[in-house]
Amino acid sequence: MPTPTSLVTGGAGFIGANVARCLLAGGHRVVVLDDLSGGSPYNVPDGAVFRRGSVCDPAVVDALFAEFGFDYVFHFAAYAAEGLSHFIKRFNYTNNVLGSVTLINAAVNAGTVRCFVFTSSIAVYGSNQVPMSEELVPAPEDPYGIAKLAVEQELRVTHDMFGLPYVIFRPHNVYGEYQNIGDRYRNVIGIFMNQALRGEPFTVFGDGEQVRAFTHISDVAPVVARSVTTPAAYNETFNIGGDSVYSLNALARATAAAMDVPLRVTHLPARNEVRHAYADHTKVRKCFGLDEGEVPLEAGLAAMAAWVRGQGPREPSVFDAIEVRRNLPPSWRAVLRD
Amino acid sequence: MPTPTSLVTGGAGFIGANVARCLLAGGHRVVVLDDLSGGSPYNVPDGAVFRRGSVCDPAVVDALFAEFGFDYVFHFAAYAAEGLSHFIKRFNYTNNVLGSVTLINAAVNAGTVRCFVFTSSIAVYGSNQVPMSEELVPAPEDPYGIAKLAVEQELRVTHDMFGLPYVIFRPHNVYGEYQNIGDRYRNVIGIFMNQALRGEPFTVFGDGEQVRAFTHISDVAPVVARSVTTPAAYNETFNIGGDSVYSLNALARATAAAMDVPLRVTHLPARNEVRHAYADHTKVRKCFGLDEGEVPLEAGLAAMAAWVRGQGPREPSVFDAIEVRRNLPPSWRAVLRD
Repeated sequence: MPTPTSLVTGGAGFIGANVARCLLAGGHRVVVLDDLSGGSPYNVPDGAVFRRGSVCDPAVVDALFAEFGFDYVFHFAAYAAEGLSHFIKRFNYTNNVLGSVTLINAAVNAGTVRCFVFTSSIAVYGSNQVPMSEELVPAPEDPYGIAKLAVEQELRVTHDMFGLPYVIFRPHNVYGEYQNIGDRYRNVIGIFMNQALRGEPFTVFGDGEQVRAFTHISDVAPVVARSVTTPAAYNETFNIGGDSVYSLNALARATAAAMDVPLRVTHLPARNEVRHAYADHTKVRKCFGLDEGEVPLEAGLAAMAAWVRGQGPREPSVFDAIEVRRNLPPSWRAVLRD
Repeated sequence: MPTPTSLVTGGAGFIGANVARCLLAGGHRVVVLDDLSGGSPYNVPDGAVFRRGSVCDPAVVDALFAEFGFDYVFHFAAYAAEGLSHFIKRFNYTNNVLGSVTLINAAVNAGTVRCFVFTSSIAVYGSNQVPMSEELVPAPEDPYGIAKLAVEQELRVTHDMFGLPYVIFRPHNVYGEYQNIGDRYRNVIGIFMNQALRGEPFTVFGDGEQVRAFTHISDVAPVVARSVTTPAAYNETFNIGGDSVYSLNALARATAAAMDVPLRVTHLPARNEVRHAYADHTKVRKCFGLDEGEVPLEAGLAAMAAWVRGQGPREPSVFDAIEVRRNLPPSWRAVLRD
């Protein structure tokens, strides 16, 4: 095949910026579409075409497909805030479902797309069973997880009806370079690092004993990028991420060490979140032949910390378009403007 | 409780108009919200307050909740066209998901709503197993079913997070008085009766041996209306409809007899649809104490035919905002304006 052309939505955001780099390194022509609601234009790699716009706008999306005739679509544009999604249901479904089907429509209409890669989330599982394996029946517990599951199902029925191949990844708690550290509602490691830069204590919801498996982006982005040239991955769904689990308290200690600050933690009232979330990765390992170990937490945090120090602290954003204030965690309610 | 006030969305449409009548008969104050995209103002019963507007418009919905302080919400507004939904994905999710979460947000914010009743669909099941029982794992095969399932999940997580009680019904192939007979994409009995009035042959996709259980509205609407005063129904999901199954060919014969026209059938190429769809109704019978038999098809068709004759024939509508034309059934494509 001559040089493939790939669309990377959300390519100014965290996972997108990293996958875009992998694709460029692999010889793809890369077009980034991002509305900069969460990403930064500085994250877009040299060599990629950058267009500012929303995946929710059919005119923008259709024009882009007509201009470039994409071979592959890597769809990362999303607002991934599980806990906040209860309070912004309309925003959540608009961004995460309507944006996705706008792209799916365009891919079907274009007729050039060989594979549509989508990042879902382990939020589709809910807390029914751990470790989460792909055979479990999804039971999402927040609007974000419901939206991701709906798009997974959309890709399945679109394949059945129109023959569009897809690959779905369900990553979890990925961290690393190019991550937005200024979003107060998500990305706990980014929040901690920003708090370290600002001389503030780390904030933890609840007792901090909730457990997560954190994954450095370098264990995720290359696999996502080469999924389109891995035929066995087509029309399959994969968990992707690390196996080593840490409590938030242990994470706080490791992040303080990486940022070279003393450990100070403020515990906030617990919010409604899944308590134990870690996933089985047998399927992705087998399909992609992953036999090397994962990046250790300390090494990953060191790499991210070096990048974060170069960026400097960020003023944490406030999401102003809250739709429901009832039961909003007090720390989030406190920063709302009336 | 003093006179309860109930919102009926889609109350100018088929199921809504029938449930609104049951609620009025049961002493409710009834407010109908309908955008008249599928319904008719003539369907709104005397005694109900009628407001024209869309459930997708938060300003309209929020103002209505502020004005009336609803005790119950009966949410029927939807565009229920399974087969067409593949080709109108954006429209489908806008209407069926965003409209629903706009109402859910309003119900949570109002704080007055004691129960939120939602009509889902057996489209959530897909074709995995028959008869469909509520314990099956949903596997929708079209965007309409995916949207309905997402709203079911929304009601569950909204109950968990905010305590809003709900009742979900999954009706199937309901027919009867006040049904739109001018929609060429759905309601096979309405389509047949309109064709009978217009002196046209009945159109059947495929060989006509696909099987459905058709249900007269009088077996459905009263149960839906009294669900809010049936505590055992709260936070439960019910199939509702008839048990007697008929092929489309048998249905065509019975409808021709009810309309007193000779049987003439045109078979169109099969489209992508579930071949055998019928459901188990043990749960709804037990919870609601339903021990009478269902309305026989002949009697139900006779009642609907009498109403339809009073209405006269309709020019079948054309859905002009098709988003994807690829694989559109030829008979639907033929009527599109370019």
